[in-house]
Amino acid sequence: MILGIFGPTGMVGRQLLHLLENRNLPIKQVRLFGSPNSVGSFLDFKGESVRIESACSLQGIDFAILCTEAAISREIAPRLVKANSIVIDHSSAFRLDLNVPLVIPEINCHALNHHQGLIASPNCTTTIMLLPLAPLHRRFGIKRIVAATYQAASGAGYAAVYELQEETRAVLENRPFVRQVIPYPYAFNLFIHNSPINEEGYVEEEEKIKKESQKILEDPELQISATCIRVPIVRAHSAALNVELRRPYSKEEAVQLLDKAPGVTLLEDWQQGRFPMPSDATEQESIFCGRIRKDCTQPNTLELWVVGDQLLKGAALNSLQILETLLS
Amino acid sequence: MILGIFGPTGMVGRQLLHLLENRNLPIKQVRLFGSPNSVGSFLDFKGESVRIESACSLQGIDFAILCTEAAISREIAPRLVKANSIVIDHSSAFRLDLNVPLVIPEINCHALNHHQGLIASPNCTTTIMLLPLAPLHRRFGIKRIVAATYQAASGAGYAAVYELQEETRAVLENRPFVRQVIPYPYAFNLFIHNSPINEEGYVEEEEKIKKESQKILEDPELQISATCIRVPIVRAHSAALNVELRRPYSKEEAVQLLDKAPGVTLLEDWQQGRFPMPSDATEQESIFCGRIRKDCTQPNTLELWVVGDQLLKGAALNSLQILETLLS
Repeated sequence: MILGIFGPTGMVGRQLLHLLENRNLPIKQVRLFGSPNSVGSFLDFKGESVRIESACSLQGIDFAILCTEAAISREIAPRLVKANSIVIDHSSAFRLDLNVPLVIPEINCHALNHHQGLIASPNCTTTIMLLPLAPLHRRFGIKRIVAATYQAASGAGYAAVYELQEETRAVLENRPFVRQVIPYPYAFNLFIHNSPINEEGYVEEEEKIKKESQKILEDPELQISATCIRVPIVRAHSAALNVELRRPYSKEEAVQLLDKAPGVTLLEDWQQGRFPMPSDATEQESIFCGRIRKDCTQPNTLELWVVGDQLLKGAALNSLQILETLLS
Repeated sequence: MILGIFGPTGMVGRQLLHLLENRNLPIKQVRLFGSPNSVGSFLDFKGESVRIESACSLQGIDFAILCTEAAISREIAPRLVKANSIVIDHSSAFRLDLNVPLVIPEINCHALNHHQGLIASPNCTTTIMLLPLAPLHRRFGIKRIVAATYQAASGAGYAAVYELQEETRAVLENRPFVRQVIPYPYAFNLFIHNSPINEEGYVEEEEKIKKESQKILEDPELQISATCIRVPIVRAHSAALNVELRRPYSKEEAVQLLDKAPGVTLLEDWQQGRFPMPSDATEQESIFCGRIRKDCTQPNTLELWVVGDQLLKGAALNSLQILETLLS
């Protein structure tokens, strides 16, 4: 199998290469494809230097994983499919396309059965939230979610992580700092997710969470109102989820479901007041959840706290698991 | 008027002294009362050094503001009331006491009419949330709120702020750091508000928000399910509020109400995607709100984002305004 990775120098691309080094996949060759300013440079993979190619000729690639922005994916994915590659795309370009399965393998790997050469991996926050929500949806039916997120810098790439760290250093040292990437002060500060705002006043990230969740859980009736906030955290996203169910539930059953949910680690110690934190989830493959409690202000409603590594299950790990599912 | 300030060396006490220096109150003398380890030291007030006294003799104090912990307030407040002082307490000791008015002057200053010598100032998060919520409640009736908070270190005092900054410095410099105050990693991390957990699984802070809001808005039917999170921010709290109203509303009317709400600054620029941030609210007396949008996933529901300085309107400023209202 020849695997092509597009956008290998970004945070998701590098994370994917790192994961691939430690998984046992029948890969004959990894080919890397980059933008003009990375073409010709080299990245290490399993002890070898792999040269980054330009995306001019796309023949002979069995599987391709795109760690590129939506505009680039839109250009490259159709060419790859035409050249008979099977493409897994991280971007939002095709996620809501009816002909493109949007897949979290633990939840809807059956959607892979009907792919037409192109598969999309969801938004990082969607994936992190849905891992614990899917079993609750299956058992009790989720009617409506109110979500507030606490999103890490890594979602905005290397430059954002660097800027968070450097601006924080400058603030602590009482030095001025000129921001290049993040539009707002980020050191010891937070702000609404800076994606475009739709007519209803929701940012794109909040809309993605709703629409992608509806598609993955195959339930267009599922309602989600989200508030997405960027917090000064490096690479794990958190979310407070208020979940209204269609049917009555017991807290015990919800806890049991989450305790055995695939890809989910239940972390709650009520005696110690110990629940998931970004520092628990950082560089971990599992999604952590806890603080499951009855919201008695409304029938059939529970509160849930979720934390997951944005670069792993939120991105690179999920696409790799899609590839593994396709191969198995 | 002789004003006694108890706990003047803490963050709220110092903020209060700083505010008092710039307000025109008919104060003849400010007396400072501290714990044994601060007694005998001096604090500057209006260019003079004021010696910190012990709380042995409490005679002759017209008004007292307690910036002390609940246990200390419980001990001192009754003695002050017995000595004919009028007491304003910042702690949670008496907030839910039926004989003690719990006051945010912009919202319920009428509650001061029946005080019995003791008045409580609310929890910082309660005050910050209620400033914009009160006019909505009056006009449309609030049925239920789902709240997620983003709380600053200052709520846990000087030591927490210092520890946040020092741990962050250590992380950036790749040095080990031994925490003394905060039980969890705080540099580039966040965690559930570390207050005791009740039987229903809510932490004390979340319970305070609910019960204090019911008391201040004089509506025991008002429902609030909150998730309180401590984020690595210095001194401004934020909250994402999903607000279900009893009666239909228009977004325009809600915006108008909030635009003219006392103590509230509406900050929303939908073109620029510019909404309140902790850096806007830090050291500001006003509570900032914005991102008012219809939550169409449920009837009569709106989403609202609120940010306020925890030490000012969240604490010292509110008690000072109570004092000013009593004097006027």
